[in-house]
Amino acid sequence: MTTKIGRTMYQWVSDMFPICRSITGSGVRQTLAYIKKLLPDMKIYEVKSGTKVFDWTVPNEWNINDAYVSDAKGNRIIDFQRNNLHVVGYSEPIDKIVDLAELDKHLYSLPQQPDAIPFITSYYKRHWGFCLAHSVRKKLRTGKYHVKIDSALKPGFLTYGEIIIPGKTKKEILLSTYICHPSMANNELSGVAVTTKLAQWIQKQINRKYTYRIVFIPETIGSITYLSIFSGKNLKMMKRNVIAGFVVNCVGDDRVYSFLPSRLGNTLADRVAKHVLDHSTEDYIKWTFLDRGSDERQYCSPGVDLPVVSIMRSKYGSYPEYHTSLDNLSLISPRGLEGSYELYCKCIEILEHNDIYKIKVLCEPQLSKRGLYPTVSSTDTLRQIQDLRNVIAYADGRHDLLSIAEIIGKYAGDLIPIINRLKDAGLIEAIRAPRSAQ
Amino acid sequence: MTTKIGRTMYQWVSDMFPICRSITGSGVRQTLAYIKKLLPDMKIYEVKSGTKVFDWTVPNEWNINDAYVSDAKGNRIIDFQRNNLHVVGYSEPIDKIVDLAELDKHLYSLPQQPDAIPFITSYYKRHWGFCLAHSVRKKLRTGKYHVKIDSALKPGFLTYGEIIIPGKTKKEILLSTYICHPSMANNELSGVAVTTKLAQWIQKQINRKYTYRIVFIPETIGSITYLSIFSGKNLKMMKRNVIAGFVVNCVGDDRVYSFLPSRLGNTLADRVAKHVLDHSTEDYIKWTFLDRGSDERQYCSPGVDLPVVSIMRSKYGSYPEYHTSLDNLSLISPRGLEGSYELYCKCIEILEHNDIYKIKVLCEPQLSKRGLYPTVSSTDTLRQIQDLRNVIAYADGRHDLLSIAEIIGKYAGDLIPIINRLKDAGLIEAIRAPRSAQ
Amino acid sequence: MTTKIGRTMYQWVSDMFPICRSITGSGVRQTLAYIKKLLPDMKIYEVKSGTKVFDWTVPNEWNINDAYVSDAKGNRIIDFQRNNLHVVGYSEPIDKIVDLAELDKHLYSLPQQPDAIPFITSYYKRHWGFCLAHSVRKKLRTGKYHVKIDSALKPGFLTYGEIIIPGKTKKEILLSTYICHPSMANNELSGVAVTTKLAQWIQKQINRKYTYRIVFIPETIGSITYLSIFSGKNLKMMKRNVIAGFVVNCVGDDRVYSFLPSRLGNTLADRVAKHVLDHSTEDYIKWTFLDRGSDERQYCSPGVDLPVVSIMRSKYGSYPEYHTSLDNLSLISPRGLEGSYELYCKCIEILEHNDIYKIKVLCEPQLSKRGLYPTVSSTDTLRQIQDLRNVIAYADGRHDLLSIAEIIGKYAGDLIPIINRLKDAGLIEAIRAPRSAQ
Repeated sequence: MTTKIGRTMYQWVSDMFPICRSITGSGVRQTLAYIKKLLPDMKIYEVKSGTKVFDWTVPNEWNINDAYVSDAKGNRIIDFQRNNLHVVGYSEPIDKIVDLAELDKHLYSLPQQPDAIPFITSYYKRHWGFCLAHSVRKKLRTGKYHVKIDSALKPGFLTYGEIIIPGKTKKEILLSTYICHPSMANNELSGVAVTTKLAQWIQKQINRKYTYRIVFIPETIGSITYLSIFSGKNLKMMKRNVIAGFVVNCVGDDRVYSFLPSRLGNTLADRVAKHVLDHSTEDYIKWTFLDRGSDERQYCSPGVDLPVVSIMRSKYGSYPEYHTSLDNLSLISPRGLEGSYELYCKCIEILEHNDIYKIKVLCEPQLSKRGLYPTVSSTDTLRQIQDLRNVIAYADGRHDLLSIAEIIGKYAGDLIPIINRLKDAGLIEAIRAPRSAQ
Repeated sequence: MTTKIGRTMYQWVSDMFPICRSITGSGVRQTLAYIKKLLPDMKIYEVKSGTKVFDWTVPNEWNINDAYVSDAKGNRIIDFQRNNLHVVGYSEPIDKIVDLAELDKHLYSLPQQPDAIPFITSYYKRHWGFCLAHSVRKKLRTGKYHVKIDSALKPGFLTYGEIIIPGKTKKEILLSTYICHPSMANNELSGVAVTTKLAQWIQKQINRKYTYRIVFIPETIGSITYLSIFSGKNLKMMKRNVIAGFVVNCVGDDRVYSFLPSRLGNTLADRVAKHVLDHSTEDYIKWTFLDRGSDERQYCSPGVDLPVVSIMRSKYGSYPEYHTSLDNLSLISPRGLEGSYELYCKCIEILEHNDIYKIKVLCEPQLSKRGLYPTVSSTDTLRQIQDLRNVIAYADGRHDLLSIAEIIGKYAGDLIPIINRLKDAGLIEAIRAPRSAQ
Repeated sequence: MTTKIGRTMYQWVSDMFPICRSITGSGVRQTLAYIKKLLPDMKIYEVKSGTKVFDWTVPNEWNINDAYVSDAKGNRIIDFQRNNLHVVGYSEPIDKIVDLAELDKHLYSLPQQPDAIPFITSYYKRHWGFCLAHSVRKKLRTGKYHVKIDSALKPGFLTYGEIIIPGKTKKEILLSTYICHPSMANNELSGVAVTTKLAQWIQKQINRKYTYRIVFIPETIGSITYLSIFSGKNLKMMKRNVIAGFVVNCVGDDRVYSFLPSRLGNTLADRVAKHVLDHSTEDYIKWTFLDRGSDERQYCSPGVDLPVVSIMRSKYGSYPEYHTSLDNLSLISPRGLEGSYELYCKCIEILEHNDIYKIKVLCEPQLSKRGLYPTVSSTDTLRQIQDLRNVIAYADGRHDLLSIAEIIGKYAGDLIPIINRLKDAGLIEAIRAPRSAQ
């Protein structure tokens, strides 16, 4: 691994890190503007506040210029300019002198992690508040404080990005990542960077079988909005076309990989992700759908039922830096990003070749007359032939490439050249792609 | 556990203990008369001797007044008045002087349990005999003995009781217990007492969804008769309506619980009983249908195929006191009876709520606007919400309550309040009850 | 085990051992002539060289009179007359003086097994060569050698034998063995002997339900030819009729048994073979279809899909003597042959009785009125009755004999007398034979 691609992605994360994102507002727009420079074909959509989206309503747009708590001497002891996690997300505007007792009711800190600023939001209940390191909070003395939040919470828009990269068929692979967290690296900007790089890589692939639907959305309300708008047109198309989907997130650190299945647990997305992880890592954490927490909550909800999973590094909620200021640029690495990127490339490469194959002759074919049988045997060529003969044995019109690979105990990616040789020899044909759920 | 209910049931067992029951006769009638005082709605049926019941024929009715073996001096050395197990069930009348050699051919005792009187019957072959403690038998001396059995074996009736407690639907839950053993406590009167108490409890439940069919029958010939009479009308109705059934027996001692599955092994009755046992006891014995021995032999027979299982304490045939005079009032306890009663109540409570549920919105519902999201989070409320969110995630129109509980690893009974809250909020609906076999 | 049958089979192997077989030619014809004396009803077929058989073509016929390498003094240092493994199978004729360097390019030996002559063929590429012990090869000195192979490779025929033993139905059991290896005992003549003996035994069985198709063919090209000739008529009939099939081979040594499944893995042939092995041997090796290597490669190929498995002793490729001169008469034994023969007899006996059974009464039948219930109980009669009652419990019109045996944990062969007693009593009926794949 040269980490050249990793370093590129790391640079993107660094560039987007300072932006104060939330589920709506100018931070989302700045982030999408940055991505659009990398993916000029991406389209940006805006959905009005108040729009009904299934059981929810698109909220007012929130923007913030500045926020601080200053002491009697005018010293900013909590300062949004230094770290945008200091303000509770969606805080209403405030400009007031309060005593410590009142201030304290609006403060959030983590006694167990005294140097970390927590990430707190209050999207659907009007509220204001500040987050700070517990070590700082403990030093606050009785007295008067000036609390100032220069924010606006007004009708506006929810903003998201979408790029459709067409393939030979209308069948789709979905990549979804979120763009609603302020300055945090593993959760969330790692996902944005890897998804962007995957989109660039997919654009470069020729002869794509599948169409790729890649979305950059705020988490939860964004995926709900995306599925419901245009009278549910996206949902209808995705239900018809998506054969596999991935919520790309928490893909930046160097720790062990993890897997979060779909609700149904046996979709094509589950199968390819588990196969790639089984053959790429010594060990990885297998979460269950009960451990879900990102947009698979919507994509896999009853009635939506899309085949969506996640390959992650350290999963949201499972690592100590999660949702704090410690989830910063030092937590992730070029190597961490690139490793995740490569696993997703492997999934896509296998999906592109994952047809159900059928041998065109009865009984075993005569390999020697086609130059498929080695003239001089060595240990390695015999192994090659063994895989080829086993692929033929299970190319029975019932098994897709992933099934064949599982049966014969090999990595599906390694069987793709064999599949291509057998196709070229006219011995097998792809009879159809499998359904999303087998 | 207060054991108040347990003490009530124990008293009932004590009251019925002295009655000399068999598969027909006045002992059965006396027992049913006692139960009818507790369950006035119970109906008592009599089926004539000679009636064809599938492959069997209802036998002659057997009644007994007295029986003894007396020695040359007129001392009753074996006396039916002291313990009704002393006479082989269905013994024909006899009044004869015999020597020890002839007497011995008609004696039954247990060398391994020298103080226990065994329980022996000869329902379908004319015979007479006495059962006695082996320690007593060994003391018998050569000489003349007067054997006297004042019994009658004549055309009469087979008697059973049935109570139908109607619910909102014709779909039924079956409880079946047997009333054909003389003075024995765990096998059989514990079953009679628990079934009677369950019937009283069911009558008190308002809004019963299911109809309850509760039968008090002699074992084997009784269940065969019950299924076949009225030209098989009971069988037809039960095959159409019974969603789950239980042979309630051997439920009185304090030893470990045990489970006997249905023949098919995966019916709704199996699922609910195993779920309740898994969540109620540290450990229990899982028998297979090969270990069957009571009326599930008939209810689960091929072509009958009712979904019938048993939750027991010490299973018939598996404990040393079984079918001897040691299976007496000291073997069972109020606590033992009440524990079994409670497990059956739990099964019924879950079955009453075990619909297939479906969420009525697409994507996750917004819980906060319905007051279902805690305003202040604590560890416990978050756990509550987790269950609620997981119930929603699997309320997909395919899973019943038991399936949801199994998937999310919780006790189904604890999910009933959540189901009710979600129904009240209009978020889920019960779309249908599951079939008896899933 | 008297091994009388084993000694007979061992004698047959000894008689056929010296013949120089290949996939075509006079060695095959001599072998079939020997078998025909034992099975006069066997028919011998000849298929012309050049005939298209699926993806293959029947090759030219190969015959050989003599072959040797002699040194300058005229001493035969490698001599076909001493062991027919010395010549590479299908060697073209040669008569030439060569130096050691050129000779060496045409020699085959096994450095790891210096005293063994390897078995090498070149059926589909024109070539000549000699096989010899590595210990001999090392002693060859520089000099001139006369290489002489008096063989002929000309249009002729591929020869095979077939015997059809008719039964009451057209449904068939297939036995297939191969006759294309020169002097080797476990692989292959053990298979020929056991198959021949099985055919004699089957002919003696009266009331055969199934028709038996028994074929003696060259491996690979022979099974491909057999399936494809007569415009694929054999294949069509076999696909319609074969309920179970066995490639009988490697059945002569005394080592542990082994099992090779069909490609689908759950056919009737798999089920019966595993059941017999489970109940007949303490331990056996369970190979997977990935370990295949004989005619199951053709019989189980996609689109052919016959239910064909192998019960073997030491499997081809898994024992050190395989495909060398060490696989000789000392490797196999009468006991080894007879043990394999008996397992195949057991499979056939069970298949002949493996119907799906159905009890003809509702509820349990009354056994005592039919004399099926013991009047005096002993431990053993109770065990007998337990099996009988369990057979009745699962004779539900859904389970075949093998399923019933697996459920109740007994050997199916031991249940056949029970099945017969229940049939005689009019209590059960065979409603149909199961499909080949359950």
